[in-house]
Amino acid sequence: MYLVKAGESHGKAMIGILCDVPAGIKVDKSHINALLQERSFALGRSERQVIENDEINLITGIRNGYTLGNNVGFVIENKVHSDYENIMSAFDCDTSSAQVTALRPGHADLPGICRGNFKDARNVLEGASARNTCLNVVGGAVALSMLDMLGIKIGVRVRSLGYEKDESDCDFNQILNAKSPAYSLNQNFIDRCKSLIESAKNSGDTLGGTVEMVISPIKKGFGFYMGEKRVNSVIAQDIMQIQSVKGLYFGENSFEFNGFGSNYHGNINKQDNSLIVSNSLSGGIDGGMTNGDYIKITVALKPIPTTKKGLETIDIKTGEKAISAKERSDITAVFASCSILKCVVATAISKVITERIGCDNMTEIIKRYADL
Amino acid sequence: MYLVKAGESHGKAMIGILCDVPAGIKVDKSHINALLQERSFALGRSERQVIENDEINLITGIRNGYTLGNNVGFVIENKVHSDYENIMSAFDCDTSSAQVTALRPGHADLPGICRGNFKDARNVLEGASARNTCLNVVGGAVALSMLDMLGIKIGVRVRSLGYEKDESDCDFNQILNAKSPAYSLNQNFIDRCKSLIESAKNSGDTLGGTVEMVISPIKKGFGFYMGEKRVNSVIAQDIMQIQSVKGLYFGENSFEFNGFGSNYHGNINKQDNSLIVSNSLSGGIDGGMTNGDYIKITVALKPIPTTKKGLETIDIKTGEKAISAKERSDITAVFASCSILKCVVATAISKVITERIGCDNMTEIIKRYADL
Amino acid sequence: MYLVKAGESHGKAMIGILCDVPAGIKVDKSHINALLQERSFALGRSERQVIENDEINLITGIRNGYTLGNNVGFVIENKVHSDYENIMSAFDCDTSSAQVTALRPGHADLPGICRGNFKDARNVLEGASARNTCLNVVGGAVALSMLDMLGIKIGVRVRSLGYEKDESDCDFNQILNAKSPAYSLNQNFIDRCKSLIESAKNSGDTLGGTVEMVISPIKKGFGFYMGEKRVNSVIAQDIMQIQSVKGLYFGENSFEFNGFGSNYHGNINKQDNSLIVSNSLSGGIDGGMTNGDYIKITVALKPIPTTKKGLETIDIKTGEKAISAKERSDITAVFASCSILKCVVATAISKVITERIGCDNMTEIIKRYADL
Amino acid sequence: MYLVKAGESHGKAMIGILCDVPAGIKVDKSHINALLQERSFALGRSERQVIENDEINLITGIRNGYTLGNNVGFVIENKVHSDYENIMSAFDCDTSSAQVTALRPGHADLPGICRGNFKDARNVLEGASARNTCLNVVGGAVALSMLDMLGIKIGVRVRSLGYEKDESDCDFNQILNAKSPAYSLNQNFIDRCKSLIESAKNSGDTLGGTVEMVISPIKKGFGFYMGEKRVNSVIAQDIMQIQSVKGLYFGENSFEFNGFGSNYHGNINKQDNSLIVSNSLSGGIDGGMTNGDYIKITVALKPIPTTKKGLETIDIKTGEKAISAKERSDITAVFASCSILKCVVATAISKVITERIGCDNMTEIIKRYADL
Repeated sequence: MYLVKAGESHGKAMIGILCDVPAGIKVDKSHINALLQERSFALGRSERQVIENDEINLITGIRNGYTLGNNVGFVIENKVHSDYENIMSAFDCDTSSAQVTALRPGHADLPGICRGNFKDARNVLEGASARNTCLNVVGGAVALSMLDMLGIKIGVRVRSLGYEKDESDCDFNQILNAKSPAYSLNQNFIDRCKSLIESAKNSGDTLGGTVEMVISPIKKGFGFYMGEKRVNSVIAQDIMQIQSVKGLYFGENSFEFNGFGSNYHGNINKQDNSLIVSNSLSGGIDGGMTNGDYIKITVALKPIPTTKKGLETIDIKTGEKAISAKERSDITAVFASCSILKCVVATAISKVITERIGCDNMTEIIKRYADL
Repeated sequence: MYLVKAGESHGKAMIGILCDVPAGIKVDKSHINALLQERSFALGRSERQVIENDEINLITGIRNGYTLGNNVGFVIENKVHSDYENIMSAFDCDTSSAQVTALRPGHADLPGICRGNFKDARNVLEGASARNTCLNVVGGAVALSMLDMLGIKIGVRVRSLGYEKDESDCDFNQILNAKSPAYSLNQNFIDRCKSLIESAKNSGDTLGGTVEMVISPIKKGFGFYMGEKRVNSVIAQDIMQIQSVKGLYFGENSFEFNGFGSNYHGNINKQDNSLIVSNSLSGGIDGGMTNGDYIKITVALKPIPTTKKGLETIDIKTGEKAISAKERSDITAVFASCSILKCVVATAISKVITERIGCDNMTEIIKRYADL
Repeated sequence: MYLVKAGESHGKAMIGILCDVPAGIKVDKSHINALLQERSFALGRSERQVIENDEINLITGIRNGYTLGNNVGFVIENKVHSDYENIMSAFDCDTSSAQVTALRPGHADLPGICRGNFKDARNVLEGASARNTCLNVVGGAVALSMLDMLGIKIGVRVRSLGYEKDESDCDFNQILNAKSPAYSLNQNFIDRCKSLIESAKNSGDTLGGTVEMVISPIKKGFGFYMGEKRVNSVIAQDIMQIQSVKGLYFGENSFEFNGFGSNYHGNINKQDNSLIVSNSLSGGIDGGMTNGDYIKITVALKPIPTTKKGLETIDIKTGEKAISAKERSDITAVFASCSILKCVVATAISKVITERIGCDNMTEIIKRYADL
Repeated sequence: MYLVKAGESHGKAMIGILCDVPAGIKVDKSHINALLQERSFALGRSERQVIENDEINLITGIRNGYTLGNNVGFVIENKVHSDYENIMSAFDCDTSSAQVTALRPGHADLPGICRGNFKDARNVLEGASARNTCLNVVGGAVALSMLDMLGIKIGVRVRSLGYEKDESDCDFNQILNAKSPAYSLNQNFIDRCKSLIESAKNSGDTLGGTVEMVISPIKKGFGFYMGEKRVNSVIAQDIMQIQSVKGLYFGENSFEFNGFGSNYHGNINKQDNSLIVSNSLSGGIDGGMTNGDYIKITVALKPIPTTKKGLETIDIKTGEKAISAKERSDITAVFASCSILKCVVATAISKVITERIGCDNMTEIIKRYADL
């Protein structure tokens, strides 16, 4: 299962095609729309998201709520497009207005105009915008439905925003229940985040942070030990495509762990006639494969580079110094990233599962998974 | 450019094929062997490496020191194979001896026997071993030679080992010069690491740590802003295939940064008639593309799971508790990973470069790169 | 450049995403619609095509007539959907009516229900229909525009329909000018085809045939000599995805040639200081690469399996013998395939070109191509 | 399952890596060597093959006769290399001697030197040579072993050589038994071919022909109906990579059939409680999927372009007219292609099978296949 995306943020619509989808996944429209709402109305979003108010238009590959095995194609309208029709249409529009020539630092603007040989960064920023993560949400919703049929769940919670941290420990099953708009189980932390967001908003600034993900146990031996099929490689490749993500790690405190191997690696024990991994800090993946334990991933997100303050730059039209565009913008993508990450990882995990046990229809896949 | 690997650590040899290689890359045999030596004789290695003493046997795709454009195929002999011939041959050997049934925690053993339906973890561990990173070194040596023809260099230094940290700041160009066997410019830190390794060795334990990578400026606009061609996604996918790696991030302190966007994102300025990115913490990649600045990556490595102490486990032959095999083993892969990481990233970057400006021959590629 | 497709023939719409598209290709809306019309109104089509009357809805990746380098996403409405809304919607529709249980021989029905574990072949036939070739036409229109900027043209003519053959020889440049709806330069042959179509229509039957393609000279050395990058492999893979295609060959009479090698292979000569291939029957490709000559491909198409007569089958609902559905249907896909083949091959060739000289923007690509 | 190849025909050795191989395939060394012998000692080969006398050196991925699930890596020595060591080594050899500058028409020489920016066609011809099909044989031998465990067989017979044709009809099961060195069941045809080969040899010329392949029934529903997973596309892509192949078709007489659809498409009937396809000319594939019938493929091969006579060409060193090299050469690749085609198609079919029912180990795969 993998997703192909297309779209510019002020174009007519965003388009996605989810490929390699088994037949017989039960998909629920309200589930998809709810996930889109989670993405749009997370903490720290701007009013722009209210305008977006995305709704799925599911066009192909699903019939009466079940996947057909055919590619799943869908469209999400860009509701702001009506105001941009004259400058952002495929044909016969006016590209001389609304140009972005004061390149925005931290964005794709500068490298993008070099790659495309453009004089207007709008040709870049429209496609480079995180707007297209709405497509990941829809693809991921289908993947989540498939995983659900196999009894696999994914949870996400925010661990830090700027200097605010949630130090509380959580049982993995609790994290599976963290919910939008705050994706946290710690009210005190939520309150601190809200204050910090308010203060960043007032100073025209933005915030980054970290997010923790948990995947409920997958049977042992999915993925592979050599090359591109290592589960951690598959997941990293996909998470790293989310615009704000700067880093990720698997397991506990990978960048902070400073002890010895004997404290890091757990044991293998017997439980109910099955072998289980205990007390390992490695986060559910050993040798590039699922080890039967919960998978744990932590992700770092940078502050959004569009700030109301603006940043010093050059205007390529004049060649002079300028301040980058002061657009309406989110304060942080950290909370919004939770639903996106959940969906991106669900798609990656679905791919890993079908590669091992096949990709025809859910009746067979459920039976084969149970048989392992 | 991408590498296909094959091999078991006690099998006859390791085999690699490097694909999508432009013609005309000047390759030096002693450069490859030197990199193989760097991998083998880094700090913290066991005596086993001395036995390995790898030498490249370059068989295809290179003629008289220049790539032909054809796939580059090579073999690295496993010098220990002579002792294992009877148990690790393709045909007519005895698989009843030297079985590994006390599954080693933290390794591929447990998930691997489930995936392969095996009763002997040797069928898994031989291929899952980090032994195969010697192949990444050879592929990367070719990639490094290509990058060198374009004026691009890669440097690596160790930042921490267990609880020992190198807090010293380094100019990026200094890091390009850090060298084997310690990959550090800080003698005090090297000394502390040596002591720590000695103490871990004495207690039969292992160590992890962190490593910092720097790539000298690549012209602006390599990679892409959407999907799997984002430079960070390409690099993350490949780094995550190295056995000990648990995490990575781009830019400065991505998991620690707790300030605001206006402190994170730098400016765009003019220098010598060209636009440059200054003071950004984002590490040379904006919008999934190279921004003309140094690229910076930090990687976290877990302690090697094979400890002399052993770990509690189950023996699948008896079904009883056991202590995992007490093999000869390295104390840490952190220093050894430096040359491997350099090679893996070189291969990824070469791929990114040829995808944008083509993959026929270096005469054209050098000209096209200069023309940008 | 490659196309990802989605859609069912009576669903809401067909969706396509064209990936790996350089920036700066000039695309003309009327050119795309004209190609869609060529596909719909070729000789031998049924009245159904008149209902289709496809129009492109270009949604992403193109701004004011130029590609942005971003994926090109588009939608083609299924105008018949309004009649099928209740049975062919993603959610809340009635799948108990309009079931197809008398499996149609020669179609995907039988293998498709096995793969998908279905009891209703509608779940298969909707996606398996050649309806989705309208998407290939749009993707190919963009590719044709790119090739046009490099001076490369593609032509197609029908060589046979059922027992009617066009034995006339044509200069390659004439074939570049064969036009819809007959794609032939031989009026006598066209007349004979029209009569044959009429007679097949009257007997409720269908017709296959053969089609000849010509690509104007591409510079020497595109493609590669080993593996999946061989031009003939790239083209064959894509042509074989067109529903009616049963076979193809490169060069002259590959299945009929019965002479010796010295009569087959031509010579290499000098012309205007450049080396050219003369009198070769191999059709413009040597060693998997373009040799600077015209490329020639011949394609065989089977008769459409849906005949008004119907064919003997089993109804899986009753388990009894039945006659397959007697739907409205085209008499032949041979003429309609001409525009589709042109578009499919254009996309394949564009991929081959960007793989060698890069995929950023047309300014650079045109310069690089000229420099060879 | 897919094969990655490397090697030059007079280099040290050929190297192959077979990827995505399930664990537990029983592989027999003598079976591989027998297939290599079939390739080398087919009718119409030159004495060169006797020199080759290939033997497999299986290095990775197989232990005691069973695949491990790890990539299968292998080496086939080029026995002629000893005579070429000084001109065909990776390092420190003399490229000024044994240059090929009289470009050989019909070969990769001309396009290859353009692509690689070479002045010596040896840099091209060594890798472009059909020598590397010995690697396909080894990869295919593993695939054939896997198919054998599922009860699937592949047969090949020669249908024509130059103007000699075998018009005899064969039961599909007979074709499964056609054997090297003639791959024919018709002694009269074999005798005529031998005479024709002799006469071509005497006149310093070469011969092409056609070959027919049969795959015993695969269960219904392997492959897919849309895009690159269509079985015919997968197979065509791979067959078209064999050096001499100019075309292929599925089913009966695809380029000759001139009747109506009602004569082409068969029926669906019931047999032993299962649905079967009868009397279809479409050759075992409907809608891009296996339909449970025998699969039939016919392949056209051109005469080998290296003739003793030589062909008119230009010498790029002098710029003058010349006659292409008069090397020792096979008279025809038609008979030799039989084992190669069998192996290439086996690999493609194995890929199609694992994509639907998974790729972990044969115990599971056999069970899953039986369950369909």
